[in-house]
Amino acid sequence: MENFIINNPTCLHFGRGVISGLPPVLDKYGKRVLLVFGKNSIKANGVYDQIINQLHLAQADIFEYSGIKSNPVVSDVDAAAELGRKNNVDVIVAVGGGSVIDSAKIISLAISIKNNAWDLFEYKVKPTSAIPLIAVLTLAATGSEMNAFAVVQNDETKQKPGYFSPFIFPKHSFLDPEYTFSVPANYTAYGIVDLIAHALEGYFGKGETTLTDRFVFSIIKEAITYGPLLMNDLKNYDYREKIMFAATCALNGMTAYGKKTGDWGVHGIGHALSVLYDVPHGASLSIAYPAWMNYFKNRIEDKLVLFGKEVFNEPVPEKTIACLKNFFHQIGAPTSLKEIGLDARHKNEVTENLVFNKTTGDNFQMVQTDFENIFELMLN
Amino acid sequence: MENFIINNPTCLHFGRGVISGLPPVLDKYGKRVLLVFGKNSIKANGVYDQIINQLHLAQADIFEYSGIKSNPVVSDVDAAAELGRKNNVDVIVAVGGGSVIDSAKIISLAISIKNNAWDLFEYKVKPTSAIPLIAVLTLAATGSEMNAFAVVQNDETKQKPGYFSPFIFPKHSFLDPEYTFSVPANYTAYGIVDLIAHALEGYFGKGETTLTDRFVFSIIKEAITYGPLLMNDLKNYDYREKIMFAATCALNGMTAYGKKTGDWGVHGIGHALSVLYDVPHGASLSIAYPAWMNYFKNRIEDKLVLFGKEVFNEPVPEKTIACLKNFFHQIGAPTSLKEIGLDARHKNEVTENLVFNKTTGDNFQMVQTDFENIFELMLN
Repeated sequence: MENFIINNPTCLHFGRGVISGLPPVLDKYGKRVLLVFGKNSIKANGVYDQIINQLHLAQADIFEYSGIKSNPVVSDVDAAAELGRKNNVDVIVAVGGGSVIDSAKIISLAISIKNNAWDLFEYKVKPTSAIPLIAVLTLAATGSEMNAFAVVQNDETKQKPGYFSPFIFPKHSFLDPEYTFSVPANYTAYGIVDLIAHALEGYFGKGETTLTDRFVFSIIKEAITYGPLLMNDLKNYDYREKIMFAATCALNGMTAYGKKTGDWGVHGIGHALSVLYDVPHGASLSIAYPAWMNYFKNRIEDKLVLFGKEVFNEPVPEKTIACLKNFFHQIGAPTSLKEIGLDARHKNEVTENLVFNKTTGDNFQMVQTDFENIFELMLN
Repeated sequence: MENFIINNPTCLHFGRGVISGLPPVLDKYGKRVLLVFGKNSIKANGVYDQIINQLHLAQADIFEYSGIKSNPVVSDVDAAAELGRKNNVDVIVAVGGGSVIDSAKIISLAISIKNNAWDLFEYKVKPTSAIPLIAVLTLAATGSEMNAFAVVQNDETKQKPGYFSPFIFPKHSFLDPEYTFSVPANYTAYGIVDLIAHALEGYFGKGETTLTDRFVFSIIKEAITYGPLLMNDLKNYDYREKIMFAATCALNGMTAYGKKTGDWGVHGIGHALSVLYDVPHGASLSIAYPAWMNYFKNRIEDKLVLFGKEVFNEPVPEKTIACLKNFFHQIGAPTSLKEIGLDARHKNEVTENLVFNKTTGDNFQMVQTDFENIFELMLN
């Protein structure tokens, strides 16, 4: 293994009714609350009312910023940060999936700095603190509830970079599987894809590990076992719970212990599809991961053999890739560009975006010809 | 799963040479250091000199308390706490295995209270703070480096209770596999037993989990794969590393996520053997666990079948228990009381101690007749 540090200070509250633990947490951080959420789904499913009820119990002053997009944009971050600054908020409560929590992380930094949020992504400013962030998760997917990463896109520059800061671990995260009951089938499937992709980004990262690999397989097996059951029974608490917890574990550190870095090349490709064509993040990954595996299959043969044996009881790399693709298909996630209405005519635009953004994998590096070849493999 | 909270604030530094990170950590907590360690092994193997060197680099004032026993006793805790109080120390640096780190945890609480340390175990006093603790691990076994548990024994009352406090998570722990190179074969084996036992205590705890069970199997498979290789090559960095990391993961929370409690009955039996006959902790567990499994095999049949299939590729519970026993034997850990010089004449004393200490499992509860029957199963 490479030398590594484990340092994850997020306090995660998991299970039915955990939101009742919100008021005592607010007692620690303050009562002027910037409440950040997405569209109106949390109003339709009752989650909004539950949160407001808890905030009232905590005697909080609430300042709302809603409308965070599922592919979140930096203009929302700036507007929310401005609202937070103006009202001198003590704490952010982010209610949503990764897009909302990621946005809230950048908002929590941006409130402290005078600059625009995008200056963070361009490393023009180095934050030294952040407003405390509390996350309430309503979508099992990104693991943002227990890590210090955030991804936000810039629609003007067509960039979708990631950002890391030790200050943006949520202080507390509340995960009630019931809060995900109303997630529709397609986004449920994208979440399952996303968690598998996160585990794989660790697995294909730099550095040989063995126990960490076992954790990766554990998480993916959990997703592959219970994902299809959940897709057939979207309001089943047990299945929602299993997928929700697997998603947290897939990106809270344990899939990369002892790695120098994860790979993250597939995420780079996925981000290009999202920023150019508003493809949901998980859908971009179910298309890109099998293609990436196919393209690199000779270089990653040993890892594919081990992954295949452990997860699919299948030692042949090509068949393992087919198993993964079939699984994505089975749960309703797209596995080709064709399915989302893209074709060979989009090749240049995608490739140019990837080159422009200096996309690469941290372990398996990619340049323009690699992108072109992987694009071809994504087509059908 | 049961509702649960993940909240583990320990910052773990893992790998070669990580001790060079000690001075910046001391900058945060203060320079009056209570240095706690065991016997002279850290002087023989050079670890002591490395620590002292780092403490000098940090310009620390050092107050030493040495001589913590491998089955640590509360009288040492009181004496060390007194030394710490008298010298107004800012921070404790504990260098050793679980016995030293567990002692240091209680010392860190005891410095803050006026009472004797034993009053903590009797819940006569409720601590509200602790001196910050930094751990430097020299024995892979207990996981104490990344949890908030401590076990200390009282030779007068013949008790060996556990204690939990959120204040006793080490702030930082430094794990350099090379620091365990000189651990002799028997204690290396006991450490492997201990980590397996910790994972099993989670597995046999209260509450149905699936992903957590997969983590349990991952950790045990790692130990079973690399334990024997390490026993044949005690100075092999890779094998030391794998066992060291597995031991941390076995009791840093992840083997009990979603459990109401672990079981811990086998540890109770082991503690009785340790407090009465100074049996090394790991050796007590390699004797007690197979016997406990045999005794409860009908009640835990489903769990034994799953465990056997996943870890030993063996679906028959009796054979699985034999596999585990064989494994312990293979690495040189005892699996019967006979091997450590105990026989039927000790039955009453052991049983009385277990009854006196109100030992039980939190999931599989035990009373006197259970202890008697398990004792019989431990004999040979």
